Amino acid sequence: MKARVAIRLRPDVLDPQGKAIGQALGTLGFSGVDNVRQGKLIELDVEASDAAGAKAQVKAMCERLLANPVIEDYEIEIEG
Amino acid sequence: MKARVAIRLRPDVLDPQGKAIGQALGTLGFSGVDNVRQGKLIELDVEASDAAGAKAQVKAMCERLLANPVIEDYEIEIEG
Repeated sequence: MKARVAIRLRPDVLDPQGKAIGQALGTLGFSGVDNVRQGKLIELDVEASDAAGAKAQVKAMCERLLANPVIEDYEIEIEG
Repeated sequence: MKARVAIRLRPDVLDPQGKAIGQALGTLGFSGVDNVRQGKLIELDVEASDAAGAKAQVKAMCERLLANPVIEDYEIEIEG
């Protein structure tokens, strides 16, 4: 099964990379851009008999390796 | 308007970071994991009168700064 994990810095954590992107966009002439945040997108195939099993597995991966739960939130989507 | 951009390496481009994550997951005891790919997720607010306008603006940002169209694909989603 295909799993997609979106990993984002928690809203109260500063995101200097996002800020740099926002400033660069301004320099390039894009106005009205705000709140730029950069996160990670991890996609992987997992072996599981159903979506709930796949999600539980990926959740464990997030807790142990993929995300840093102190400063990051993650969101898991499972596709057929 | 809120825009979300998923930036992924093109399927024919090697992803050493994804491979490293896959190996680390194996070392941690997660079996049956395959095709790990790591991409970027950029979220930002743009000023636009409608979703089509917002999407066109974000597409221009992707072409000029956010993505490297030689090796990366991007996907734009606009939320109300």
